[in-house]
Amino acid sequence: MAEIGKGVTAGKLAINVQKRLTRAQEKVLQKLGKADETRDVVFEEMVANFNKQMGEGTKLQKDLKAYLAAVKTMHDASRRLQDCLADMYEPDWFGKEEMDALAEELIEKEMDINLEDTDTMWLDYHQSITDKSLQNMDMYLSQFPDIKARIAKRDRKLVDFDSARHHFTSLQKGKKKDEAKIAKAEEDLGRAQKIFEELNVELQDELPALWDRRVGVYVNTFQSLAGHREKFHKEMSKLSENLNDIMTKLEEQRQIKKGATAASKTEDCAKSEGANHSESASSAPKRSAPPPGPPPSRPPPRMTPSPNQQQQNVSPFEDEPSVHDTNTDSTTTTLQVRLTAKCLCSGYPV
Amino acid sequence: MAEIGKGVTAGKLAINVQKRLTRAQEKVLQKLGKADETRDVVFEEMVANFNKQMGEGTKLQKDLKAYLAAVKTMHDASRRLQDCLADMYEPDWFGKEEMDALAEELIEKEMDINLEDTDTMWLDYHQSITDKSLQNMDMYLSQFPDIKARIAKRDRKLVDFDSARHHFTSLQKGKKKDEAKIAKAEEDLGRAQKIFEELNVELQDELPALWDRRVGVYVNTFQSLAGHREKFHKEMSKLSENLNDIMTKLEEQRQIKKGATAASKTEDCAKSEGANHSESASSAPKRSAPPPGPPPSRPPPRMTPSPNQQQQNVSPFEDEPSVHDTNTDSTTTTLQVRLTAKCLCSGYPV
Repeated sequence: MAEIGKGVTAGKLAINVQKRLTRAQEKVLQKLGKADETRDVVFEEMVANFNKQMGEGTKLQKDLKAYLAAVKTMHDASRRLQDCLADMYEPDWFGKEEMDALAEELIEKEMDINLEDTDTMWLDYHQSITDKSLQNMDMYLSQFPDIKARIAKRDRKLVDFDSARHHFTSLQKGKKKDEAKIAKAEEDLGRAQKIFEELNVELQDELPALWDRRVGVYVNTFQSLAGHREKFHKEMSKLSENLNDIMTKLEEQRQIKKGATAASKTEDCAKSEGANHSESASSAPKRSAPPPGPPPSRPPPRMTPSPNQQQQNVSPFEDEPSVHDTNTDSTTTTLQVRLTAKCLCSGYPV
Repeated sequence: MAEIGKGVTAGKLAINVQKRLTRAQEKVLQKLGKADETRDVVFEEMVANFNKQMGEGTKLQKDLKAYLAAVKTMHDASRRLQDCLADMYEPDWFGKEEMDALAEELIEKEMDINLEDTDTMWLDYHQSITDKSLQNMDMYLSQFPDIKARIAKRDRKLVDFDSARHHFTSLQKGKKKDEAKIAKAEEDLGRAQKIFEELNVELQDELPALWDRRVGVYVNTFQSLAGHREKFHKEMSKLSENLNDIMTKLEEQRQIKKGATAASKTEDCAKSEGANHSESASSAPKRSAPPPGPPPSRPPPRMTPSPNQQQQNVSPFEDEPSVHDTNTDSTTTTLQVRLTAKCLCSGYPV
C-alpha cells in the first residue's frame, strides 16, 4: 500500500513539475511576443477593484484595532487618574466631627459609584465596537484570501488554456497531420478551457457582487461606530457632570472647614494675647503661658530629646530654672527662643 | 586678584570640610547614645505630611501627563479611523448621475466638517487640560524642591546646634574653666541656635499652610478636569450623532442605488431573454445577440489578445466564422463558451 501511495505521489509530482514547466515556457513565449496572451480588460479591472477593496478593508480593520487599543489606553489612563483622587481622599479633608465623617462617607460612596460607572462605560464601549464593528470587518475580510487564491488559480489556468490552444494550432498547421495527436490536443484544449471557464465564470459573478457589498460594509461599520460613540460620549458627559457635582460638594465642604478653622484661629489669637501660632502649633504639648515680655513672633520649637536620652531627664518642657543662662544675644533672641534654649540645655544629661 | 580668590575659596572649602566632620562626629555620638539628639515630634509629622503630599502631587502630575498622552493617542487613532472613511468614500458610491454627484458633494462636505470639528474638539480638550489642570499642578509642585532643600538644611543646622550645645556644656563642666573659651563657645552656640531657629520657624509656618492647600489643589484639579470632560463628551456626543446622521443618509442613498440597479437588472433580463449577466458584464464590449440555442448561463469572458499581437489581428470580438471549430465537448460547453473559443482561435496569428 505504501509503495502504491508513493508511486501515486511521485506521479502527481511529475505531472505538477511538467505543468509548471509548460506554464513557464508559455509565459516566456508570451513575454517575447512569440505567442498571443489572452487578456480580459474588464476582468483585470475587477481584479484591480478587488485588490483596492482588500487594501481598504485591511486598513480599516487595522485602524479599528488601533482605535480599540487607544480606547483601552485612554480608559486605563482615565481610571488611574480618577484612582488618584480616591487614593488621596481622606476623612480629615473635612474635619474630625461626626457630621464630617457622615459627609465624608457619603461623598466617598458617590466617588466610588462614579468611578465604577465610568469604568463600566469604557468597557461597554470597547466591547460594543469589538462585537459590532470589528467582528463585522473580520467576517467581511475573511472572504478575501479564498477569492485571492482563486484569482491566482484562474490566472494559472488561463496560461494552461493558452498553452493548449497554441499546441493544438501548431499541430493543425503541421505538414504531416497526425489525426490522433490532433484529436488528443483538441481534447486537452477543451479540458483546459472548461477548467478555466468554470473559475472565470464564478469570479465574474462574485467579484462585482463583492465590490458592490463594500459600500454597505463601510457604511454599517461607521454607522455602528458613530452610534456607539454617541451613546458613550452622552453617558460620559453625564458621569463627568456628576463628578463635577461631587467636586463642588468637596469644595463647599473645604470652604466651610476653612471658615471654621479661620474662626477658631481668630478665637485662639484673642485668647493667647495675639500669639501668631501656625495651625500645627496648636497640637504642640501644652506649656504655661509665657511670662510678660515682648510678644513672641513664632511658636517655640517643640523639641524632645531622643528616646534613649529621655529616661535620664526630667521633661525638657518644664519651665525649671536653668543653671546656665545660654542666652547669648539678648538683643535679637526672643523670649520664646530663650525659653527653648533653656529647655534644650536642661535636657542635656549631666 | 586670582590669588586672593583662590585663597578665599580654599579657606571656605576648609571650613566646609570641618563643618561636615563635626556634623558626622555629632551624628555618630547621637547614634551611639553618647549625646542627646534634639527631636521635634510635631515637626517630624509635618515633614512626613510634606513627603506624603509631594508623593501624592507627583503621582497626580504623572497620571495627568499619562492621561494627556492617552488623549493624544485616542485622538490620533480616532482621526485615522475617520480618515479611512473619507479616503474610501468615492463619487461612484452613489452612481454617475448629476443628482448623485450633487448628493455626493454635499455628503462629502458634511463629512469634512464633521472630521474637522471632531479634530478641533480633541485638540481643545487636550489644550484645556494642559492649561488648566496640568499647569496648575506644575506650579503647585514647583514649590516642593525649595522646601525640601530647606528641610534638609534645617536638619543639618539642628545637628550643628546640638554639637555647639554639647561643646559649650562640656567646657562648662570642665575642671579648669577657661572663661575665654567658654565665652567663645557660648557665642557659637547662640549663632548656631539663631540659624537653626530662623529656618525652623519659617518651616513651621510654611509646612502646615502648604499641607492645608493640598485639598484645594486636588479639588480644583479634578473639578476643572470634570468640567472639561463634561464639555468634551457633550460636544463629541453631538458630533457622533451628526456622523450617524451622515451615515444614515449614505445608507439611504445606497438603498436607492441598490433598488435602481436591481430594477435595471430586471429590465435587462427581460430584454436579453433571461441572460444571467453579472453587473460588470454590462460594461463588456457589445456583441451581437447570440444565435438561438440553449440559454447561456454566464457572460462570455471578454478576452483580447495582448497588445503586441493585436495589431496583426482583426478584432477578436467579431463574430467571423472560424476555420477550426474548437468545440470539444458539445454536451457541456455552452453556446457562449463555444463562441469564445472561436474568437480566441481566430485571434491567433496565422
